[in-house]
Amino acid sequence: MAGLQYRRIMHRYSFTIEYDGAPFSGWQRQPGRVTVQGAMEAALARLDPGAPVVYGSGRTDAGVHATGQVGHADLAREWDPFRLAEAINAQIKPLPAAVIDCARVADDFHCRFDAIERRYTYVIRNRRAPLALEAGRAWRIKTELDIDAMNEAAGHLLGTHDFSTFRSAHCQAVSAIKTLDFLQIRREGDAVICDVRARSFLHNQVRSFVGTLERVGAGAWPPARAGAALAARSRAACGPVAPAGGLYLSRVIYP
Amino acid sequence: MAGLQYRRIMHRYSFTIEYDGAPFSGWQRQPGRVTVQGAMEAALARLDPGAPVVYGSGRTDAGVHATGQVGHADLAREWDPFRLAEAINAQIKPLPAAVIDCARVADDFHCRFDAIERRYTYVIRNRRAPLALEAGRAWRIKTELDIDAMNEAAGHLLGTHDFSTFRSAHCQAVSAIKTLDFLQIRREGDAVICDVRARSFLHNQVRSFVGTLERVGAGAWPPARAGAALAARSRAACGPVAPAGGLYLSRVIYP
Repeated sequence: MAGLQYRRIMHRYSFTIEYDGAPFSGWQRQPGRVTVQGAMEAALARLDPGAPVVYGSGRTDAGVHATGQVGHADLAREWDPFRLAEAINAQIKPLPAAVIDCARVADDFHCRFDAIERRYTYVIRNRRAPLALEAGRAWRIKTELDIDAMNEAAGHLLGTHDFSTFRSAHCQAVSAIKTLDFLQIRREGDAVICDVRARSFLHNQVRSFVGTLERVGAGAWPPARAGAALAARSRAACGPVAPAGGLYLSRVIYP
Repeated sequence: MAGLQYRRIMHRYSFTIEYDGAPFSGWQRQPGRVTVQGAMEAALARLDPGAPVVYGSGRTDAGVHATGQVGHADLAREWDPFRLAEAINAQIKPLPAAVIDCARVADDFHCRFDAIERRYTYVIRNRRAPLALEAGRAWRIKTELDIDAMNEAAGHLLGTHDFSTFRSAHCQAVSAIKTLDFLQIRREGDAVICDVRARSFLHNQVRSFVGTLERVGAGAWPPARAGAALAARSRAACGPVAPAGGLYLSRVIYP
């Protein structure tokens, strides 16, 4: 009964978290490795007697960045959300992660299960020269990409499908059936930006999409091959997986 | 006469150079320090028997970035400009500098003396949280900035003036009289972008402008104080100099 009472006086907070993925072995806590979840938990352990677990809306891989990852945790102490964010940020440095927003949320809010949409942005720099300012922050592609062809290929992927082709061998999802709500490619100067939205994603799904779209954009594959790859439901039909450093978890939407 | 003949067969190339200022002690060659000019010259020394000097359109300070610095050099060998850029980029890595454009230019082209306009961009992130993704790439200001007030202050600085107030003590320019053609501040999400254009600048002039505009934007100074600071022609009247990491030399214009 003491445990139950203890649970009742917990205070749940959500966090919007920005991070540079480069020094992190991804989101998920792993012994002996620097991870975003581990860093958040280490920071909170110094602030709250409950040594809170930090949940995330989803795992990001090593090298993947976030401008809007969402997490939550139950704290034994009540905090002003603004002070809590400042305190975490003071503890987490010099690691490149920061709580950019913090809110008190309902006791049954869950950053992972309540999310109705996840948004990712993938950044390509379409140029010959190495990236002096964006090394590890974008994928450099030397061949001039055909954006129209990429968008045509993207059209074949929209909707509800078995996305086995675009799923890592390590993916733990029970089903490969997902609904892709939005996939659009646009040029901004020498950058090519891919915006992707779905309720949830398979492991490596966005990077697998981008790797496949790159083949189409480079003229190596006709746009229809994206549809054929999807229909094949086989990893072997996928383009090369795009590098982690170009990927940003940009936003998680809640009802 | 041999020297004269040797000069006659030189081939002049211009370079558009991007760099991350963080690891460099600025543009200018200095013994025992890593500088952009030094890195460009070291790269060219491995490619050309003439051990070319690389001229720059202007010196940038330690920590200042460039997306469009322009340099030039005379090479003993004739190069395809595309191959030359690739060869320099191969030599210069892993330093974060890259030739993003290269062209054969007239023998009397001079990247510094021929420039008719220099453009700088200063990036502020106007938010509480530390910068996880843009550390060293932007100036974080926690107080919400009043963009209208900043633009009103900027209006007082436009035109031809004695800019002694906005000039570093180390400035080597003979005259402090310069013409400021453009100074505009705009908000993009939580970023505040300052675009500045002039034929030439005094040492620390842009960072001195931005430091002064920040005081106005934060409400600490009325906009008119920028005009009073200018009229004072005294370094003491200037706001604090803004940090180097927010500044980008973005473009140099030629006739």
